[in-house]
Amino acid sequence: MVVTFLTDFGLQDDFVGTCRGVIKRIAPDADVIDITHGIEPQQVLQGALVLASTLPYMPEGVHLAVVDPGVGTERRALCLRSGDGRLYVGPDNGLLILAAERLGGIAAAWQLTSPSFRLEPVSHTFHGRDVFAPAAAHLARGVDPAELGPLLDVGGLVRLPLTAPVVAGDRIRAEVLLVDRFGNVRLNLTTEHLEEVGIAPGSRVELELTFERYFAVASRTFADVRPGDVILYEDAYGNVAVAINGGNAAQMLSIKPGDQLGIRILR
Amino acid sequence: MVVTFLTDFGLQDDFVGTCRGVIKRIAPDADVIDITHGIEPQQVLQGALVLASTLPYMPEGVHLAVVDPGVGTERRALCLRSGDGRLYVGPDNGLLILAAERLGGIAAAWQLTSPSFRLEPVSHTFHGRDVFAPAAAHLARGVDPAELGPLLDVGGLVRLPLTAPVVAGDRIRAEVLLVDRFGNVRLNLTTEHLEEVGIAPGSRVELELTFERYFAVASRTFADVRPGDVILYEDAYGNVAVAINGGNAAQMLSIKPGDQLGIRILR
Amino acid sequence: MVVTFLTDFGLQDDFVGTCRGVIKRIAPDADVIDITHGIEPQQVLQGALVLASTLPYMPEGVHLAVVDPGVGTERRALCLRSGDGRLYVGPDNGLLILAAERLGGIAAAWQLTSPSFRLEPVSHTFHGRDVFAPAAAHLARGVDPAELGPLLDVGGLVRLPLTAPVVAGDRIRAEVLLVDRFGNVRLNLTTEHLEEVGIAPGSRVELELTFERYFAVASRTFADVRPGDVILYEDAYGNVAVAINGGNAAQMLSIKPGDQLGIRILR
Repeated sequence: MVVTFLTDFGLQDDFVGTCRGVIKRIAPDADVIDITHGIEPQQVLQGALVLASTLPYMPEGVHLAVVDPGVGTERRALCLRSGDGRLYVGPDNGLLILAAERLGGIAAAWQLTSPSFRLEPVSHTFHGRDVFAPAAAHLARGVDPAELGPLLDVGGLVRLPLTAPVVAGDRIRAEVLLVDRFGNVRLNLTTEHLEEVGIAPGSRVELELTFERYFAVASRTFADVRPGDVILYEDAYGNVAVAINGGNAAQMLSIKPGDQLGIRILR
Repeated sequence: MVVTFLTDFGLQDDFVGTCRGVIKRIAPDADVIDITHGIEPQQVLQGALVLASTLPYMPEGVHLAVVDPGVGTERRALCLRSGDGRLYVGPDNGLLILAAERLGGIAAAWQLTSPSFRLEPVSHTFHGRDVFAPAAAHLARGVDPAELGPLLDVGGLVRLPLTAPVVAGDRIRAEVLLVDRFGNVRLNLTTEHLEEVGIAPGSRVELELTFERYFAVASRTFADVRPGDVILYEDAYGNVAVAINGGNAAQMLSIKPGDQLGIRILR
Repeated sequence: MVVTFLTDFGLQDDFVGTCRGVIKRIAPDADVIDITHGIEPQQVLQGALVLASTLPYMPEGVHLAVVDPGVGTERRALCLRSGDGRLYVGPDNGLLILAAERLGGIAAAWQLTSPSFRLEPVSHTFHGRDVFAPAAAHLARGVDPAELGPLLDVGGLVRLPLTAPVVAGDRIRAEVLLVDRFGNVRLNLTTEHLEEVGIAPGSRVELELTFERYFAVASRTFADVRPGDVILYEDAYGNVAVAINGGNAAQMLSIKPGDQLGIRILR
């Protein structure tokens, strides 16, 4: 059984390795696939977005995700099942919801409470190791989620506020969701939003940042523009993104996650 | 058979991948679990501490560890067996000792000398690839450690000097062992040391650094204090650590491994 | 079947994890070995050098490599077979050639064109996920390369320009190929080049950088010199490299990949 694994633990410390060890002690045959451990520390929204956009490419299995600023508080520990049968394990802070909704909707939710499927005594600060990894491993061995704890009301799960873009006239007000290693900047937009204001491949646009404005061109791919040109394109996960051909857009335009960005079509 | 793997190689270069390839050529069925490769370059003590605190969470198997500033010198290459039957492979510089002593004590030690279980010619600078990874892989295949080289006197193994904390009156003098990605600062203390000077959850303390003093509160978890508060808590590995709720303690207090830290209870 | 995997994707984002998921959906039994994902972004030559120097340590299998600044252009997607039977998958930009030539020469080449072995619709910017990982996974399942697309003329494959060192009199003009995490600096030289100008272990040499000159000593290993000494040595992959015993040579000498370096024997 596959266990996919996404966290904000980074790879510098032993946190990921320790969780892998815990999984393998419980479920020696589990095949652990690391999605990423590079979510920015405690950025639950980033984790939720990456989980939702990558799970369609993952084998069905148990999907373990830990970005957990509320560890040690009363926040609940969850197992979800989505409509397509996948299982999810992680904290009740919205991290798992977007992915499960994208993959058939949340069919059921349980709270992880049974001491039999934890490492006791549970630490106050590392539920990845003591609560979530053991639960994922037991599920991968075939344990029924109902054994892990009581059924929860799906309506009562914690959800993340998602900022919708504002589209008005010839302008879009968007928000930066993610910046990747290449400096490409993912926005909370799809090409449908661009089409609403008439932006199509080849359109020239103005990007309005807090202190600066830049010209950019809407394009299908880097290859269609000159080196150094700023482009607006549909990225590989179906979101609109900003990039610089041969450069690092986030650095050159000083953009970071959470920033607001205006887009105006030039006619 | 599980092979756990801990080094200071980092993941930017191919060193870890090359060792994985070497292991898999010799023992195709070995299940390699990376504990971490983020030990600071050549920090043997850090490697030893992380190995000792994580192995209890790892399946029993062959435990390969390489932090090896003495590569190319006369330092010996080792296989150890601990009382619980685990096998360890790494350099004779103290890296393996703390873990083996924690898991049943060192039952036996061998020097890795047999050319049959190395990649010949052995390079002068990459014994991880040429000596340690092949030995671990052969052990994972079931080779008896005694075939790898002669039995060694356990008393003659290189050991690391560990700094003990000084507890006197209402004060503790501690040393920083590790800083993790979240900026949490692990000290060479357990809660027993805190109790000796009367520090319990809820106690207010003063942290004395070289140039600055800070107020902190002893706490079971982040959740018990306000954002921005400095806390002293028992971390998930049973050590006392310093953290800032919602912040990076190492950065904000300018603390790094090896630093001295005074702790004084405020009554 | 083993699939080795080398990219410039880094581990901060989900790119590597997403490709792993794609491989595992198609070939659940594939054993994926990460060589490294730390190639500098879009540095095809670095990727080609690391692939060529590490593959001899890898089990034979399918060797997937993606460093692909030309994604979205007309550059072709390739499968190669080398003389020893290994298969290679990656872009037609020279990335795969050095490795295949080192392992028996390029026996055959195919262009990846068949929609049956891609994820459709293929994105414009992430062929690692949509073209290369699926092809590698299908090959790992036993699909014949000829099913992936038409046979190509090996003579028409894109090759990288490799800078040869200049050896004249008592001087060598070399180029920096790689810098590793320890700051060790790999040059485009073997010990044969050193021998041509009479440099042997123990020789004293002058290193000529753009603005500075340094004394160094040719040595078999770090252990033969004092801490802080600059050494010229044969690294574990058979290349001549520059290091500082106990220090970071690249930082202290301000050297980076692509830099020119003169070496002159001092008699």
